[in-house]
Amino acid sequence: MPRRVQAVRGMRDFVPPEAAFRHQVAETIGEVYRCYGFEPIETPALEDLAALLGGHAGENERLVFKVLRRGQKLEDALAGGAELADAGLRFDLTVPLARFVANHWNELPMPFKAAHIAPVWRAERPQQGRFREFVQCDIDIVGEPSVAAEVELCSAGLDALAGLGIRGCTVRLNDRRLLREVVEAHLGHLDDPYPVYVALDKLDSSPAGSVAKELSPYGEDKASALLEWVAEADLASAAAISEHAAEVAGALGSTLDALAAAGHSARFDPALVRGIAYYTGQIFEVAHPEVGYSLAGGGRYDSMTARFGGPELPMCGFSIGFERVCDLVDRALFASGAPKVAVTCNSEQQLLACLALARSAREARPASTLSVLRRARNFHKQRADLERLGYSQFVDGQDFIEASGR
Amino acid sequence: MPRRVQAVRGMRDFVPPEAAFRHQVAETIGEVYRCYGFEPIETPALEDLAALLGGHAGENERLVFKVLRRGQKLEDALAGGAELADAGLRFDLTVPLARFVANHWNELPMPFKAAHIAPVWRAERPQQGRFREFVQCDIDIVGEPSVAAEVELCSAGLDALAGLGIRGCTVRLNDRRLLREVVEAHLGHLDDPYPVYVALDKLDSSPAGSVAKELSPYGEDKASALLEWVAEADLASAAAISEHAAEVAGALGSTLDALAAAGHSARFDPALVRGIAYYTGQIFEVAHPEVGYSLAGGGRYDSMTARFGGPELPMCGFSIGFERVCDLVDRALFASGAPKVAVTCNSEQQLLACLALARSAREARPASTLSVLRRARNFHKQRADLERLGYSQFVDGQDFIEASGR
Repeated sequence: MPRRVQAVRGMRDFVPPEAAFRHQVAETIGEVYRCYGFEPIETPALEDLAALLGGHAGENERLVFKVLRRGQKLEDALAGGAELADAGLRFDLTVPLARFVANHWNELPMPFKAAHIAPVWRAERPQQGRFREFVQCDIDIVGEPSVAAEVELCSAGLDALAGLGIRGCTVRLNDRRLLREVVEAHLGHLDDPYPVYVALDKLDSSPAGSVAKELSPYGEDKASALLEWVAEADLASAAAISEHAAEVAGALGSTLDALAAAGHSARFDPALVRGIAYYTGQIFEVAHPEVGYSLAGGGRYDSMTARFGGPELPMCGFSIGFERVCDLVDRALFASGAPKVAVTCNSEQQLLACLALARSAREARPASTLSVLRRARNFHKQRADLERLGYSQFVDGQDFIEASGR
Repeated sequence: MPRRVQAVRGMRDFVPPEAAFRHQVAETIGEVYRCYGFEPIETPALEDLAALLGGHAGENERLVFKVLRRGQKLEDALAGGAELADAGLRFDLTVPLARFVANHWNELPMPFKAAHIAPVWRAERPQQGRFREFVQCDIDIVGEPSVAAEVELCSAGLDALAGLGIRGCTVRLNDRRLLREVVEAHLGHLDDPYPVYVALDKLDSSPAGSVAKELSPYGEDKASALLEWVAEADLASAAAISEHAAEVAGALGSTLDALAAAGHSARFDPALVRGIAYYTGQIFEVAHPEVGYSLAGGGRYDSMTARFGGPELPMCGFSIGFERVCDLVDRALFASGAPKVAVTCNSEQQLLACLALARSAREARPASTLSVLRRARNFHKQRADLERLGYSQFVDGQDFIEASGR
């Protein structure tokens, strides 16, 4: 008795019409990216573990699916206690892009605007709405030091969402450098402010009280002052912290102004952190009034190329969370205009005749779908199943033959 | 000093414009598949090792990239000597499809026509033209027992190639059941004829003498008689072997006649084997006069669904080798008609002004690409790099602002 094998835990099959819908959503996003001048790139699903585990991607690095070494290398590793794996599945598209640019910068136009729509893998605990394989839709600008990069990325991203009928989004904007100034102004100098960021990041989902408790080792009064500041600050109060903070706040103001001028909704959010360690400047997330999570996010991560032996280059990226967006898209948007015709046949002979005739029928109507199929015993179910896939015309094989012979 | 990290050995990055070209090739193939009524599906990159290592895919099973277990499960495996991996990257799209159908047949129209264009991974020894990550473009028909499946798959596949400007292909056709009759007629009954198939499969690439030597354990005279038969046989001599062989040869004749009627070139090839163990009936490969390898191939693998706990269903598939096809496609085919315009700017201020103005310029010409970029110090190189990506118009930022203000 064969064992019943399912899809790997936390990963998904997509049956029709879902896979076609997902393809259309990805194509729509890619099309907007293309119009903005972002050029598609491809990188392998696997990356060297040295690239993935640089200590800059926080939690995600603990979620890497590692790929076992093979043959003699595996035996040596088992015998010598060495690492059993030397490669892993990418957990995002940012680290691979930085590695890609470090390897290829001399072949690329500079500034370089990249688009990358592809799956990533994370060994998250499977739960509602969290998957171990999911698609990201990234755009990145390499070589642009000014906030023009942030502005263009957010504009292109919001336009891609608008192309999917998702409007009313707001960009929440902050800056990692400001965050550091703010944290240190309240808690004093920290060699590693990252644990404080991780705590602040929970303000989105946890009560302020539990975040205060997490920060209490830094001093309860200091922690509550920090949380109070974060809850109420605007750009002016941010600029008042220090000269450096004023400069960073000024750049945030430029981004906000430019996004507003382009008709986008955007606001300073002093509590915005983003969980990933590698950001070096402005960070942003896209909120939508209908959902409690971000649809997209990104930020500046200058010089990540240098980690892989490349030159230090300004880098900034924006990533649409494809799975979350798919949940919001109205499927009627993609209800195709091209007709789908099913020709159902009763025998091998009829099938072969209809297949031959379908050739010229297809030539006459190139964009439409014409499917020749054996007629199922339960035609009622077959027809209902095909209607669910968008078939609107059903032709009996014999009728098709006679009509074509006329 | 950071270590220089490259793409994983045997895997590839694709810089522009190559990635865009590959996307267009895949879209063209997918579009022809869609017109024939093949519905896209998606399955995870990872499959349970129980699914991948069923002993039916021959050599490919030894090439699986295995994914390390995690956490306690890995520690238990290391302590107890159990398997270190429980999942692996798929080596083809056929085994995942069979697992998919076994899981979802009740949600699918039946017969079911699936299209699946996706990467697969094999730990092949890296060499010229062989990659460890490559794309396959599969179509499969589930639930059609007659050669109408083979005929439709080959027709759709050849039309997809023709859509890429690849014409003049020939389908080589054989049947695993006939192969068994032929082998046993010459070598006597064999419990496992598969090693003989593997030897015959080498006739494509090795001299007949070395194949004869490999078969000599079965008796030198018998082996050379088999090779002689294989070199010269036609469908009539195949039919003469036995009643069963006559039946199988008759079905091969039906496939050949139907393909010829559809204007395709197809011939019986008694030496065609295909390396994979799971085939149960007709097998085919697509040859092209300009290259020494097959562009596509496939065959019938009835009831593979049963291995995964599903019902026994007729299954037949056709796979285009995407990488090989990309090498043959004339890139001029996809030289886009939509203009690509680069607006190059000298400052952050100019960039922000141009980004704002680009919005309305894009609305006026929705399909074209308008890229706003910082002007590089070496504009000559920047311009040449952008021309290589299809940019034909270059506008100075200041001119763009003035023209838009008019």
